[in-house]
Amino acid sequence: MRALWLEEGAVRRRDDLATPEPSAGEALVRVHLAGLCHTDLELAKGYASFNGVPGHEFVGDVAPGPGAGEWAGRRVVGEINVSCGACRECAAGRKAHCERRTVLGIRGRQGALAEYLALPVANLYEVPAGIPDEAAVFTEPLAAALEVQEQVPIGPGERVAVIGDGKLGQLLARTLALTGCDLRIAGRHPEKLALLAARGVAAGPSASLPERWADVAVECTGNPEGLELARRAVRPRGTIVLKSTYHGRPAVDLSAVVVDEITLVGSRCGPFAKALALLASGRLDVSDLVAAVFPLDQAADAFAAASRPGMLKVLVRVGD
Amino acid sequence: MRALWLEEGAVRRRDDLATPEPSAGEALVRVHLAGLCHTDLELAKGYASFNGVPGHEFVGDVAPGPGAGEWAGRRVVGEINVSCGACRECAAGRKAHCERRTVLGIRGRQGALAEYLALPVANLYEVPAGIPDEAAVFTEPLAAALEVQEQVPIGPGERVAVIGDGKLGQLLARTLALTGCDLRIAGRHPEKLALLAARGVAAGPSASLPERWADVAVECTGNPEGLELARRAVRPRGTIVLKSTYHGRPAVDLSAVVVDEITLVGSRCGPFAKALALLASGRLDVSDLVAAVFPLDQAADAFAAASRPGMLKVLVRVGD
Repeated sequence: MRALWLEEGAVRRRDDLATPEPSAGEALVRVHLAGLCHTDLELAKGYASFNGVPGHEFVGDVAPGPGAGEWAGRRVVGEINVSCGACRECAAGRKAHCERRTVLGIRGRQGALAEYLALPVANLYEVPAGIPDEAAVFTEPLAAALEVQEQVPIGPGERVAVIGDGKLGQLLARTLALTGCDLRIAGRHPEKLALLAARGVAAGPSASLPERWADVAVECTGNPEGLELARRAVRPRGTIVLKSTYHGRPAVDLSAVVVDEITLVGSRCGPFAKALALLASGRLDVSDLVAAVFPLDQAADAFAAASRPGMLKVLVRVGD
Repeated sequence: MRALWLEEGAVRRRDDLATPEPSAGEALVRVHLAGLCHTDLELAKGYASFNGVPGHEFVGDVAPGPGAGEWAGRRVVGEINVSCGACRECAAGRKAHCERRTVLGIRGRQGALAEYLALPVANLYEVPAGIPDEAAVFTEPLAAALEVQEQVPIGPGERVAVIGDGKLGQLLARTLALTGCDLRIAGRHPEKLALLAARGVAAGPSASLPERWADVAVECTGNPEGLELARRAVRPRGTIVLKSTYHGRPAVDLSAVVVDEITLVGSRCGPFAKALALLASGRLDVSDLVAAVFPLDQAADAFAAASRPGMLKVLVRVGD
């Protein structure tokens, strides 16, 4: 099959890959559309030492086959962590933290920038008919944005700052705006801030964020400056949610975290069912977040485009 | 009056200081006994740019005077944060985080290594008769240890690791042992670990702490190695409580915090009333934690002694 291949930090097209062999309980998914995210770009820089097919944001349909059963032909998205079901973490109900997990396109499992991928049917969610592929492909990052609300109670009583106006910051801003909280977004890109302002979200440059204003600050930049801005924006005893991985080990003013009794919460994958329900409800529009769509044969160009500063979501069209 | 004076990182005895003038609502306290802690040693290295009389752990009695009222003659300990009562933080009920606060012996207020100190009577707590001065002087750090339980629910269902066997680690271990949690202490000093083992607490070197074992890890060392040990000791979705300030800005593996969805909680001052009640109950013994007692005239030597690696609590006898 055709796919994009990542090896030693370089991405290239391959036409010679075998179609994945689904294990017991797994189905083969024919990919329609895949999205690129910050983690993919980090993988291409050597993060997590992943060699193989990248991509973990996708929408597709289930190919008929032994493992597909009743899922055959359904349009699906899928949770990216594949758990063993038996280790200490699985036994404790933390399947996304399974000690032996594989992660689609990130760890030990070929990803979505290919004609086919394999996932356990237990990971699949059927996409309601009203959600176009171009929105369904946002299910994974949207779920990650909603995870913040799973971890920290946020409602009309909270002041919330989102640091970063990029792909993740946009989804955070749009999901948080639905909670009724007092919301402000700080970013560096006037055109992206304008997307939020057009939706009635208070968005401006870093300097527009008052110090010690927020009960909760969500850090979506993955750079140390963003983290420092979050720390200054949050009030004593407030909470900073870390939504992005960091290159290397950033230096952090932990004494200020102690003195101000701040809580930092690491946040990763989130609830797919809620993300799909939100997309189906029509209350969350992502159509303006697509910056470009490349065909699979030009997926290496898609990577290059996604790496450009200020790019919103880059999609790769695989099939239909 | 006589006092120890800290200036530009050097400590020296002074006999020429004026007795503090209590402001409205404040009383003068005649200090009996004061304790030195990690923060005092950091102040002497230049932390917080404090010049003046250090010391914030004390027990004394209230001197008669205009502000003393009914408190005159009572034996007291005192909360160290003096709040304005009017700023945004005070209005929100976070008095210990008052934007204009002074802090005894740390920020804008002369401390306890002196014959007298001044504090608002609202900060004072009477010491029950059954608690000797040598135990009452531990009220402030004991309250700081109890703050962990104010912030994170800990009971028989939790596995808790304490990183550090020093002054603060000892108090953490002893307070947490009372919760019924499954408790392990990791430290570097066999003689200090032995103090805990003698009390039935599982205590050993760092290597004895299993990876990803703890629901909650309490970091009491204030060094980056201790923080890294805490991170490795805690399970995915677990909590690390930061109890100690750090010199500079340590480099932190925040990507692991995100991927494992770990929560970090900064923790500072705690509930005095609960600390006194615990000391009064006789369920918490601190007598073996006193390494040395120096007279006020030798308080500079006390600082030097407290700076030696491995020292437990150094006290300074001021009066009686």
